[in-house]
Amino acid sequence: MWGGRFTQKLDPAAWALNTSLAVDRRMGMQDVQGSLAWAAALHQAGVLSEDEAAQIASGLQAIQAEFTAQSFTFSPDDEDIHSAVERRLFELCGQLAGKLHTGRSRNDQVATDFRLWMLQTLPDIENALLQLQNTLVFQAEQSQVTIMPGYTHLQRAQPILLSHWWLAHFWPLQRDRERLAQLAQRAAVLPLGCGALAGTPLPVDRQALAKALAFQTAAPNSIDAVSDRDFAAEFLFFAALCGVHLSKLSEAIVLFCSAEFGFFELSDAFSTGSSLMPQKKNPDIFELGRGKAGAFTGRLVSLLTTLKGLPSTYDKDLQEDKEPVFASADTLLALLPALAGAIQTITAHPERMLSAIDAGMMATDLADYLVRKGVPFRETHALAGKAVHAAYEQGLGLDGLPLAVYRSIHPAFEEDVYQVFDAWESVKRRTALGGTAPAAVQVQLAQAKESVQRKLLF
Amino acid sequence: MWGGRFTQKLDPAAWALNTSLAVDRRMGMQDVQGSLAWAAALHQAGVLSEDEAAQIASGLQAIQAEFTAQSFTFSPDDEDIHSAVERRLFELCGQLAGKLHTGRSRNDQVATDFRLWMLQTLPDIENALLQLQNTLVFQAEQSQVTIMPGYTHLQRAQPILLSHWWLAHFWPLQRDRERLAQLAQRAAVLPLGCGALAGTPLPVDRQALAKALAFQTAAPNSIDAVSDRDFAAEFLFFAALCGVHLSKLSEAIVLFCSAEFGFFELSDAFSTGSSLMPQKKNPDIFELGRGKAGAFTGRLVSLLTTLKGLPSTYDKDLQEDKEPVFASADTLLALLPALAGAIQTITAHPERMLSAIDAGMMATDLADYLVRKGVPFRETHALAGKAVHAAYEQGLGLDGLPLAVYRSIHPAFEEDVYQVFDAWESVKRRTALGGTAPAAVQVQLAQAKESVQRKLLF
Amino acid sequence: MWGGRFTQKLDPAAWALNTSLAVDRRMGMQDVQGSLAWAAALHQAGVLSEDEAAQIASGLQAIQAEFTAQSFTFSPDDEDIHSAVERRLFELCGQLAGKLHTGRSRNDQVATDFRLWMLQTLPDIENALLQLQNTLVFQAEQSQVTIMPGYTHLQRAQPILLSHWWLAHFWPLQRDRERLAQLAQRAAVLPLGCGALAGTPLPVDRQALAKALAFQTAAPNSIDAVSDRDFAAEFLFFAALCGVHLSKLSEAIVLFCSAEFGFFELSDAFSTGSSLMPQKKNPDIFELGRGKAGAFTGRLVSLLTTLKGLPSTYDKDLQEDKEPVFASADTLLALLPALAGAIQTITAHPERMLSAIDAGMMATDLADYLVRKGVPFRETHALAGKAVHAAYEQGLGLDGLPLAVYRSIHPAFEEDVYQVFDAWESVKRRTALGGTAPAAVQVQLAQAKESVQRKLLF
Amino acid sequence: MWGGRFTQKLDPAAWALNTSLAVDRRMGMQDVQGSLAWAAALHQAGVLSEDEAAQIASGLQAIQAEFTAQSFTFSPDDEDIHSAVERRLFELCGQLAGKLHTGRSRNDQVATDFRLWMLQTLPDIENALLQLQNTLVFQAEQSQVTIMPGYTHLQRAQPILLSHWWLAHFWPLQRDRERLAQLAQRAAVLPLGCGALAGTPLPVDRQALAKALAFQTAAPNSIDAVSDRDFAAEFLFFAALCGVHLSKLSEAIVLFCSAEFGFFELSDAFSTGSSLMPQKKNPDIFELGRGKAGAFTGRLVSLLTTLKGLPSTYDKDLQEDKEPVFASADTLLALLPALAGAIQTITAHPERMLSAIDAGMMATDLADYLVRKGVPFRETHALAGKAVHAAYEQGLGLDGLPLAVYRSIHPAFEEDVYQVFDAWESVKRRTALGGTAPAAVQVQLAQAKESVQRKLLF
Repeated sequence: MWGGRFTQKLDPAAWALNTSLAVDRRMGMQDVQGSLAWAAALHQAGVLSEDEAAQIASGLQAIQAEFTAQSFTFSPDDEDIHSAVERRLFELCGQLAGKLHTGRSRNDQVATDFRLWMLQTLPDIENALLQLQNTLVFQAEQSQVTIMPGYTHLQRAQPILLSHWWLAHFWPLQRDRERLAQLAQRAAVLPLGCGALAGTPLPVDRQALAKALAFQTAAPNSIDAVSDRDFAAEFLFFAALCGVHLSKLSEAIVLFCSAEFGFFELSDAFSTGSSLMPQKKNPDIFELGRGKAGAFTGRLVSLLTTLKGLPSTYDKDLQEDKEPVFASADTLLALLPALAGAIQTITAHPERMLSAIDAGMMATDLADYLVRKGVPFRETHALAGKAVHAAYEQGLGLDGLPLAVYRSIHPAFEEDVYQVFDAWESVKRRTALGGTAPAAVQVQLAQAKESVQRKLLF
Repeated sequence: MWGGRFTQKLDPAAWALNTSLAVDRRMGMQDVQGSLAWAAALHQAGVLSEDEAAQIASGLQAIQAEFTAQSFTFSPDDEDIHSAVERRLFELCGQLAGKLHTGRSRNDQVATDFRLWMLQTLPDIENALLQLQNTLVFQAEQSQVTIMPGYTHLQRAQPILLSHWWLAHFWPLQRDRERLAQLAQRAAVLPLGCGALAGTPLPVDRQALAKALAFQTAAPNSIDAVSDRDFAAEFLFFAALCGVHLSKLSEAIVLFCSAEFGFFELSDAFSTGSSLMPQKKNPDIFELGRGKAGAFTGRLVSLLTTLKGLPSTYDKDLQEDKEPVFASADTLLALLPALAGAIQTITAHPERMLSAIDAGMMATDLADYLVRKGVPFRETHALAGKAVHAAYEQGLGLDGLPLAVYRSIHPAFEEDVYQVFDAWESVKRRTALGGTAPAAVQVQLAQAKESVQRKLLF
Repeated sequence: MWGGRFTQKLDPAAWALNTSLAVDRRMGMQDVQGSLAWAAALHQAGVLSEDEAAQIASGLQAIQAEFTAQSFTFSPDDEDIHSAVERRLFELCGQLAGKLHTGRSRNDQVATDFRLWMLQTLPDIENALLQLQNTLVFQAEQSQVTIMPGYTHLQRAQPILLSHWWLAHFWPLQRDRERLAQLAQRAAVLPLGCGALAGTPLPVDRQALAKALAFQTAAPNSIDAVSDRDFAAEFLFFAALCGVHLSKLSEAIVLFCSAEFGFFELSDAFSTGSSLMPQKKNPDIFELGRGKAGAFTGRLVSLLTTLKGLPSTYDKDLQEDKEPVFASADTLLALLPALAGAIQTITAHPERMLSAIDAGMMATDLADYLVRKGVPFRETHALAGKAVHAAYEQGLGLDGLPLAVYRSIHPAFEEDVYQVFDAWESVKRRTALGGTAPAAVQVQLAQAKESVQRKLLF
Repeated sequence: MWGGRFTQKLDPAAWALNTSLAVDRRMGMQDVQGSLAWAAALHQAGVLSEDEAAQIASGLQAIQAEFTAQSFTFSPDDEDIHSAVERRLFELCGQLAGKLHTGRSRNDQVATDFRLWMLQTLPDIENALLQLQNTLVFQAEQSQVTIMPGYTHLQRAQPILLSHWWLAHFWPLQRDRERLAQLAQRAAVLPLGCGALAGTPLPVDRQALAKALAFQTAAPNSIDAVSDRDFAAEFLFFAALCGVHLSKLSEAIVLFCSAEFGFFELSDAFSTGSSLMPQKKNPDIFELGRGKAGAFTGRLVSLLTTLKGLPSTYDKDLQEDKEPVFASADTLLALLPALAGAIQTITAHPERMLSAIDAGMMATDLADYLVRKGVPFRETHALAGKAVHAAYEQGLGLDGLPLAVYRSIHPAFEEDVYQVFDAWESVKRRTALGGTAPAAVQVQLAQAKESVQRKLLF
């Protein structure tokens, strides 16, 4: 494809390093789509006659059919997907195929293919995110009358609704979808027609070309167009942050499935066993959901570091852009459904959750009790702390501490103090927007359901 | 602040590790702003009387004045900015100060402070980006009739306009500004009123509170609200990708300032010398602009890795969120103006650029010449390659190769072939949108100028 | 210091970006040490007379005294630590000071200072690691007759000795010390005498210079010497992997301190409370021990990314090398003692650990029981699995399942099957090297104690 | 393999996520080697009779032969390489195969396989490093009388020997080999016999087992043994730092191959062309050598982030350990030979290098000239700077500046000043160890040659 001025063939070691076919072969369909649009543009620009354009289009469609049927045969000499498609077009159309690359370079071609691939893949990822969000909504709906301990620092903190807890993992995914939709806008900027770096000398209407390929607009600067990989970096960041969200959710579920917590039980269909220990039922899916955050982050670093310090326009280093993006997309498309399935089939154990709520978790309510009696909070906090300490010393729960002790701590304590230890009452009090009270959670749940009605990708 | 149930003081080694004041002290103003709004909310909720609210507000305003005057004195016992402000409020208002923390936790407080800080800092960063964009526009305007070699793979490729080259570095910054504006939307979601994790039991209107603090909305889930650090991760990614853009621009300028390229000369005010070699004039500013991409990327990794696998709600690990964000913001606010100043004062050497354009760079035009004679491009590419090789063998330029040689390569070559070696003509031909032709660049420049008219941050 | 050929002062924005004093000022002592050695070398090379060398040495010693007394005054014009020290030397010695920089460059000087700093800091880090290792040995010694559940996938797996568990966290630190000692060897290679990049024209004995500064050898190539930052990258990796070890240990302790596990209780001196919830006792030290792994990893990325693609010799980008190294060293020196103190004062709750061991954890022993009766393990594993399932269905423990059920699963089961559910017997059986049997752990503990007797740094 | 207690099959989405065969299938040989050694140990421990051990060994050898012949057939139900091998062993040996897994777990098995794989792969990597080092020595030998400009900040600094420059890239690879050898020691610690986490109850001599599998020693703690992935992280760091070295070398060569520098010309066998621009000859191999540093660094981050915060013993997250290690090893084994071939066939252009040395590069020598006349260096530096400025103003080289001007700058300048501008003399003066003088480079070259005589891996 580029051999004219060369007198030697590429050394085998150099060939092996240089070829990108193993990675970019999956962009076959996109390469043909881009070429079909380019052939039409060449016809409008007068480079191809109507007949020539038709022949090339028909050859490209035949190749498309081969990709669809998975019957396309790669040759060991194919350097990349572009040369493979062009080679096949020569086989189908003869020398005429040689006109297709007029005014185009692999630099604008590969950037176009890659963006097309992304634009066609992002909807699958949004769907997978939506599926997981729906699962969380499903679980949240089931658990509006279940209370559980809420934790900070992994210490029991305050009682919350399980429904509220599930929804806490819904909103990060909503933000992920927002980011996805926003990066899609920047991915939908067409490089085609920018040539190697300087633009094309042909009278091509690039905005029409953008429309034909379902892009939003054409890139405004040819140099930037062939070197811009922001969309790939943004996608990798989106995946990395989404991966962090999944790792947090997964970690929590791994904890809750432990014998010590015992809040959740996984379906057998989403658990695995041990080759040695017959009793084991392991939450592998969620451990993978946690562990894969590493690879997502690593791939982001990979591209950012590769891009760092590149002088501009096209450098071969950019060939490193696709492997991490494909890998992160594939991982998301494997991970999200597995997590959705595993979460959908989780059985919660409300009785275990309830029994994990001790009176100590209402210590804040105890302090609030004194606040209602007019003592400043900072003081009531210290007084409640004293009660906690006294109860600990006597091996009692806060609700078992005699009134006399309470009154010795502060005279404002009265018989009704024991009412604050009702966990349900504690939950119901937190009615402000975003709080864990059933009323507030109902509002939140409605909002979540509305959110999943709407796809954010154009 | 939390000592009630404890019987021992924190060990000095633990204290030293635990205290965050060295980092979060810069959020003093934001902490007071948040507290002012919270005091008003407590009044509306009936927790503070009008008089109490007024006293607390007046105490907080006094603290604000101390921060403004940089006269606020930290105590060695201050654990963080929140306890420092509260300690001072006690000094100013007595026990009444103890009412301020009612229904609030440091978990929602610190998240609020941090978001406020970011929302107040982002405009400075957008301005610094705009300043650099303006500088690029300035240089692009100066250089609309200057041609230079365009490179791919750092090999001379095709002639381009210097103006076009400058603008190639404008658009990435425009995308950076877009990302900045979008993350700002997600930063402007208020955590205050979410308590430690479960929400506040007080009848607080959180949307009103959001408005009062110039947020866009209140967070919908209290658990998510105290643990969500997406905005920080997004900011660090924004900075990392922006840093990559600056590193690419910087690398190109370092190259162009070398004796071998000789395209650019820096002002003495933006160069440094050597302690050993008297002749040296070094592009340190641009080397730092390149090298600092490492720290930006590192800080992004830092936060993503810290967040990975956190169970949910507030864990102390989150204290690690601020240092990288402050550092990346500070670095951008130091780097962008220095780069803007250095670029503004660059002197271009058009004659060096012109002399670096050899006829070989018009080999594509040579191939296009034959295309216009009806030969398919892939064939003309090979023929032009042969001409390149022939010229190389004979130690000639493409424009020095005799017509006879051209005709021996292909009979369609005629006398007019030598016209394709005019670099200006080559540039002028690339008129399609985004191309390097003066006409196309003029359109692009107008678009760029329009872009810098508009701030994207709300 | 380098102004001769310049006609303008550095622009303030450029100055602010360029100055490194805020970071490198802590290398004052090392800068003077290097200069003292260089002055002696200049004397031997005949550049300084005996008297001049003495005067310069005496000036440098005065500066050293100022650093020791923290009375050294920096000037706003000091660009870095080198120019600060030289400026002061001029104040003390007059024009003679100008002879010190003969044949030396800041390039070899800063690399020397930085390596000296590291060589002088590594022993502190080894000591801090040793302190933590000793603490683990202390706890391991206390807990040789305590059994606890061992986990895989955070599911109860097999009973183990607590002593064995503590030692599992000892060996990673031992590997960390090994890595520390090995990188120290590579840090101890002297750059001084390499000039800016080409070597020094003075007849300096660089091996003698290396010895004088307590280096192991002199760098063999001047270009490599001024650009080599491997030692810094290695240190950052050492810190990152050590940080990962600390994060794993910390995570486990955070879990064990939860109410649900209840295995460990922290001393009040190493716990913190909540500003809102009076009952909370939080394991902040260990959460920080977990969270700081992010910053360690980020700093490693920072340097690797900065170094990537640097052309060679000295580029200003290298100025970015020190900040991450100083930060990781400081963090380790704060984190390791805090963790050591917190672990030393942990109270274990053997009764909670014991009660967490259920008969299901001996399912492997049950399978082994049948193996001893001649059934192949893979089969016995399935049979034991059936027993687990049967017990689960009937709401029993494995040890509560009637013999009849066992015999219905396999006839080889006999009355003695119930003996396999003795957790202590299960532990005692694992006597092979590295196993959890008390006898094996005793051997291991002796080996650990021997390891901490020996410092690995030269 | 672990189904006994389960009542449902794994869901397809969970299966797809969980299976690791696509990654770990390449460890087939190592899995069999480990099993052969384990079968022998089971015989010694009395679990297998002589006859049984022989049958199993013979089955395993048959599988080994299938792997060698690449005729081993994987089944769609194989979950990982271990279950695939065990499944095949059942086919070959019947129920007896079920005895092999006695006292072993996949946790110690996979860690053993992985370490074995690494120990068997590291020699290939050392060889590839040696090959590249030899190539650098080859080029260094060819270029002992070639001078070139040395650069700092990419500005011409001082003349150096090309031989010296090549060797500057030799020593980093030597350090890489050192690190490789050191991590190999830590990889050679055997986990086998540690079971799932608690050790094996069988009387197995683990040190003998270590010897049989060519490990250095057996792991001292079973919990650490199944979770320790330090060797993998160290390998990834080794690869990342090596990748940084290759990126620096590659960047320099890309620069030197540009038309502007013109110092190097690549062989056609190690260059590629453009699909659009017939004249292009691109240094793709070196761009990839630069760009792949990103992926190396990303993979290191991937593993460190995955490991961060894992509670201990075996968690499924560890399954993520192999993909980055395999990828970095494969990349090195593709990259190093390609770079070696490309460097071996580089043609240097000494005349271009010589012509790039201007008199300004001897400004330090000019300053040294005055030092020899007794003026302190700091002063002579400023005076030489004045000369540079004067020459620049008059459009002259330093060697063209009239003596009168020199004398007006300082009276100590005399007629012999012009001798300092001889670049060869400048080079020859730098004779101190590690300097660029031919004599010093000869010593260095001998040292380099001696270094490549010695493999560092045990």
